[in-house]
Amino acid sequence: MRHYWSSRLAEVAPYVPGEQPKDGVYIKLNTNENPYPPSPRVLQAIADAADSRLRLYPDPDGAEVCAAIAAYYRLRPEQVFVGNGSDEVLAMAFLAFFSPGDKIAFPKISYSFYPVYAGLFAIPYDAVPLCPDFTLDPAVFDGGYRGIVFANPNAPTGIALPLTEVEALVARHGDSLVIVDEAYVDFGGESAAALVDRYENLLVIQTFSKSRSLAGLRVGFALGDKNLIDALNAVKNSFNSYTMDRLAQAGAVAAMADTDYFEQTRRRVMATRERTAEALRDMGFLVLPSRTNFLFASHPDRAAADLFAALRQRKILVRYFSQPEIDRFLRITVGTDGEMDALLSALAEILGAPQR
Amino acid sequence: MRHYWSSRLAEVAPYVPGEQPKDGVYIKLNTNENPYPPSPRVLQAIADAADSRLRLYPDPDGAEVCAAIAAYYRLRPEQVFVGNGSDEVLAMAFLAFFSPGDKIAFPKISYSFYPVYAGLFAIPYDAVPLCPDFTLDPAVFDGGYRGIVFANPNAPTGIALPLTEVEALVARHGDSLVIVDEAYVDFGGESAAALVDRYENLLVIQTFSKSRSLAGLRVGFALGDKNLIDALNAVKNSFNSYTMDRLAQAGAVAAMADTDYFEQTRRRVMATRERTAEALRDMGFLVLPSRTNFLFASHPDRAAADLFAALRQRKILVRYFSQPEIDRFLRITVGTDGEMDALLSALAEILGAPQR
Repeated sequence: MRHYWSSRLAEVAPYVPGEQPKDGVYIKLNTNENPYPPSPRVLQAIADAADSRLRLYPDPDGAEVCAAIAAYYRLRPEQVFVGNGSDEVLAMAFLAFFSPGDKIAFPKISYSFYPVYAGLFAIPYDAVPLCPDFTLDPAVFDGGYRGIVFANPNAPTGIALPLTEVEALVARHGDSLVIVDEAYVDFGGESAAALVDRYENLLVIQTFSKSRSLAGLRVGFALGDKNLIDALNAVKNSFNSYTMDRLAQAGAVAAMADTDYFEQTRRRVMATRERTAEALRDMGFLVLPSRTNFLFASHPDRAAADLFAALRQRKILVRYFSQPEIDRFLRITVGTDGEMDALLSALAEILGAPQR
Repeated sequence: MRHYWSSRLAEVAPYVPGEQPKDGVYIKLNTNENPYPPSPRVLQAIADAADSRLRLYPDPDGAEVCAAIAAYYRLRPEQVFVGNGSDEVLAMAFLAFFSPGDKIAFPKISYSFYPVYAGLFAIPYDAVPLCPDFTLDPAVFDGGYRGIVFANPNAPTGIALPLTEVEALVARHGDSLVIVDEAYVDFGGESAAALVDRYENLLVIQTFSKSRSLAGLRVGFALGDKNLIDALNAVKNSFNSYTMDRLAQAGAVAAMADTDYFEQTRRRVMATRERTAEALRDMGFLVLPSRTNFLFASHPDRAAADLFAALRQRKILVRYFSQPEIDRFLRITVGTDGEMDALLSALAEILGAPQR
C-alpha cells in the first residue's frame, strides 16, 4: 500500500474501460457504442440549454428526467433515480444496499465492474458460474444471498434470460435485493421495468449510452420501489448532490421524448446484428445468440487474441478479454452496415491467410 | 433501518443543498452561484461539442481538461485530477485516503458535507473548534490525525487562512494527508496550488462552480503529488470510469483558457462584496471579513431566522443554518450590484419595521 492511500484501496483492482483512441482512424467496435448519432432533438435541446443558466446549479433530483422516464415506463417519478451513467447508478446501488457483513452473488462471466464495486466497498461476494453454453441458470443464486446482481441480457455473452425466469427469481428471493442491469435490453431483451410495481425487492438499471446513442452525455437510471429509490437518493446526497449537469438533463428529457428515432435506430442495429451474425457463422465462427448491440464470437481454428491483434493492425478495434473461460471469444460491437462489411472483409482476409 | 438498506446508511444524514426554486421569481443569494454568465467562449465550445460525437464515450481521464488546468497552475497534467464537481472530487478523496481505522479532523464550523462523507464511509472524525472570532487556529489539528480537511477560505464564515500558515501546517504534518478545499479561493484567498510541487501530503481541491460561473456544468478538480492523483484515479475507476461528459470537458477547457473573462468577473464580484459589506455594517450588522463570493453577517437586534423569513417573503433567498454556533448569522451570496441594492433596501425596510 502506498503512502497516504486508504487501506480499502488494497482490495481494489480498478475497472479497465475499452480503449478510446484519440486519432479517429479506427473502426471502433470495442465499447458497444451506437453507430448512429443521438436524435436531432437531443442536440437541439442541449444547444437550447447552453446559455447563461449554466451559472446556476442544476436540479439535484433531475425531476424532469425522472418524470420523462416514468412516463415512458408508466411508473411514478418516485420510482425513478437518475445518475451520471449507469456505472454511477450501479456504484451507488452497491453502497445503498450491500454491507460488509452480507454476501452477494453475481455471475463470474458478466460485467467486470461488479467485483470492482464489491472490492471498493468491502462487500463479500460469490462469483457464480454460468452453464457451459453461457446461459444463466437462476438456481445458482439459491445461496441465501443478501443481494443478487446480474446483467440481462448478459455481457459480454449477449444472452438474455426470459422475463418469466427473471420474475420467478425475484419472487423466490423476497428477502434479497435483486439488481437487474439492463444496459442492453433495448436491443431485443425483455425489460423487468413493469415488475417494479409488484416486487419491492427489484431494482432495474438502464443507460442512455447504448440504445439512445448518448455514451458521451453520461445518463443512467434505476427503476424500483420508492423505498429503494429513497436509499439511492440518501447515498447520492451523501456523495455528490448534483450528479447530472444541466446539459445532460436537457438532453435526456429530449431523448426519452423522441420514441420514433429510438425505435428506428435500435431496429437498424438489430437488423445489422442478425445479418452479421449469419455471415460470421458462414465463416465458421461460433456466435452466441445476442439480444444486445454486440456479438460474442469464437473461431475454432484461430486464437481470439491473434484475431484481435490482426484486426487492430487493419484499424478495426474489437474487445478481447483474457479471462480463461472466455478467452476464445471476441466481443464485436454492432456498427453500421458499412462498418460490419469492413469487419467481415478483414476477417475473411485474416482467416484466408496461412496460420502461424 | 429500512428493509434492503445497507447498514452503512444508518450512519448517514445526507447533505441538504440550498433551495433551487423552479419558478425563477427569486433573487437567488443562497447557493453561492456567480451572478455573471459563463464566458461566451465556454458556451461556444459546448455548442461545438454538441454533435454526433455524443454517441461515443468521453475521454475517461479528461486529459485535455487536466492539461488546461495544469498549464494555468504551471503543474504537470499528472498532478491534476478532474471530476463531476468538487463535491464528487471530495467524496473520492475521502474514499481514497481515509480508512475506517484512522481518525481525521475538520473544523466543526465548515462545509457541512465533510461529516456526511465521513458517515457514509465509516471514517471516524473529530470536528475541531474554530476560535471565538471564527478564525482557524492550525493548532487544533495537532492530534496525530491521519487526515486534515479544511476549507480555505472557510465556509460559511468566508474567512481565509494566510498561505504561510497553510504551508506551515502542511509541513508540520508530513504523515497526515492535508486536504485544502479552495472552492472560494479565486475571490481573494491565496491558493496552495503552487505548494503541491513541494509537499507530497497536500491535496488542493477547487471548483468551476463559483469563480468560473459553471455550477450547472459540474466540474471540479484536485491538485497534488502524482501518488495522490493515482489514488484518486484508482477510486474513480472503481466507481465510475466516465465522470465528466463530453460537453463538460469541452466547456471546462474553454473556461480555463479565457483568463480575461475570469479576471473581470471575479474582480466585479469582489468589488460588489466590499461595497455590500460596508453598507451592511452601516446598518448595524457584524460582517465577517470575507475572501469569498458570500458574506456571513449577523445583526445584534434581530434573529437571523426572522431576517431569513422576512427576506424570503420579499422573494430574496439567502442561507440560514440552524447550527448553534452560527445560528445568529445569514450567509448572503454576492450577486450583481442591482441584486445587492435590492437586498439592502429589503433589509432596511425589515429593520425599520417594529420588532415582534
